[in-house]
Order: sequence, then structure tokens, then C-alpha cells
Amino acid sequence: MEQRISLVTLGVGDLGRARRFYEALGWRGQEVEETVFFQAGGLALSLWGRDKLARDSGFEPRAADAAEGFGGIVLAYNTRARSEVDELLSAAERAGGRVTRAAAESVYGFYSGVFADPDGHLWEVAHNPGFTLAEDGSLTLPDFGAS
Amino acid sequence: MEQRISLVTLGVGDLGRARRFYEALGWRGQEVEETVFFQAGGLALSLWGRDKLARDSGFEPRAADAAEGFGGIVLAYNTRARSEVDELLSAAERAGGRVTRAAAESVYGFYSGVFADPDGHLWEVAHNPGFTLAEDGSLTLPDFGAS
Repeated sequence: MEQRISLVTLGVGDLGRARRFYEALGWRGQEVEETVFFQAGGLALSLWGRDKLARDSGFEPRAADAAEGFGGIVLAYNTRARSEVDELLSAAERAGGRVTRAAAESVYGFYSGVFADPDGHLWEVAHNPGFTLAEDGSLTLPDFGAS
Repeated sequence: MEQRISLVTLGVGDLGRARRFYEALGWRGQEVEETVFFQAGGLALSLWGRDKLARDSGFEPRAADAAEGFGGIVLAYNTRARSEVDELLSAAERAGGRVTRAAAESVYGFYSGVFADPDGHLWEVAHNPGFTLAEDGSLTLPDFGAS
């Protein structure tokens, strides 16, 4: 695992409200598939429905805020190769983490799984050929042609 | 506000355990003042005691996990000038956010405050002359001379 973060996803209750907040602070993004993506330096900040983010991370939305400790934020690490997804999920388990959602193909064309670190912080591990990773590991969002 | 994140801080129950987990995945960091800092591309990932992080963000540690929605992660935005801290906290309030901890001098020599976005996601806004911000907004940790 290289020492980098590809995306920070914030689970939100109202996508429009959340987007307006960040836009009021000067951010500009694109909405695709009910997700708002902002380029933020060498990574992306994204806004996605909190329930969908919980479910995608292996949590029941209703239970997510309780003892299980779903905090509504998921970090993502994008790999350079598909095989690294399974390798990293296994390594995280061996290191004391927990796979909360097994690796699977996404309907959006990428392959990913999610692990929790020992404190329950969530990392999606994803191989997404649609998002460019530079040599230095920085991620550049595509132009989705969306506003 | 420029479109970037300077630090992602994970609140942890056991700093040594958390550090060992990330080191087992290949990360290398430095521990300073009971905080472990990892350079992660153009930003820093840091590990800090969850109770201290809660308190520093304006939450009571005991109550933090309940209805208030303290998820144990705080994003940070480092400003280029001290005056931007107050300006951005005010802008966040006007935009529908909430200042959870008013701006104040830190014992570590920086000036910061914390706001919550409309979904409760926390951002520390900090002016920290000890952390270098490049022209492009990327942050480079100093060599603390620590291991």
C-alpha cells in the first residue's frame, strides 16, 4: 500500500444541501449518479447519500450510527491493479482490521471492497480504471461532462 | 477556501495499536506529542486519541458518539494566513455550518477553530506556520526528528 488517500467520501442526508454548502465556500464539483465529486488537490472529496454509503460499506443504515460506529466518512485507496484490491483487503485483515464488505464488481465498472481499521475507520479499496492515478499516486477526476 | 484537504485525523482508542496497523500495511510515520503523522501524498494522515480529538473539536468525549454524531474523523484545512481562519469559520456559519470550537491559539503554536458542515462532518481550520504549504496547496510535514 502506498502512503496516500484517493478519495474522502462524506455521507450526507441531503445531497443538494451539502453541495450548496461547499459551493458557498467556493468549491466547484460535478454530480454523477447522485454523487458530487470535487477535485481537492491530489485527491477527490465526494458527497454521497449517507444510507447508500453505509450500505456500500457493509452496514445497515439504521444500525449504522449506533454501536457499530459508522461515522459517515469513508476514505478510499485506489489501487493501480485489480489484484491489489484482494491483496490489500487480506493484508488489512492480517494486520488486525476487518473486512466489512467483500470485494465485488460495482455497477459503475470498478472493483472494490471495504475494510475497517482497528478503530472502525473505513477504507474502500478500489480499482477504478476510470479515475486516473498519476505516477505519484495523485488522483485526477475525469471530466464527467456534468455540472 | 481553496479546494483541498490538508490533514485527515483519525481518532483512535490506542495509538500504538493504530500505528502498528498502518505500519503493517507499509506506512511510515513520526510520533510527536502523542500524535502519529504520516505523509500521504499532498496531505497528512494523523492518528490522535479519540477523546482528545473529540474535546479539541468541541465535543464531550462521553457524549461524542451518541446523537451529536461525532464520527471520530476530522478533516483539516490549513490556511495561508492567520486571518483566513476567522474568515472561513464565519463563511462556514453563513453557509449553514456550525462552529463547534471557536478559534484559539494552540499550545503547539498554531491558530485554529473547528466547524461542522450541515451533516456534522468536522473541519478544523488552522493556520500552522510549522507545516509547509506549497503553491499548489499540498502540505509537507516537517521532519520532527522523531520516529
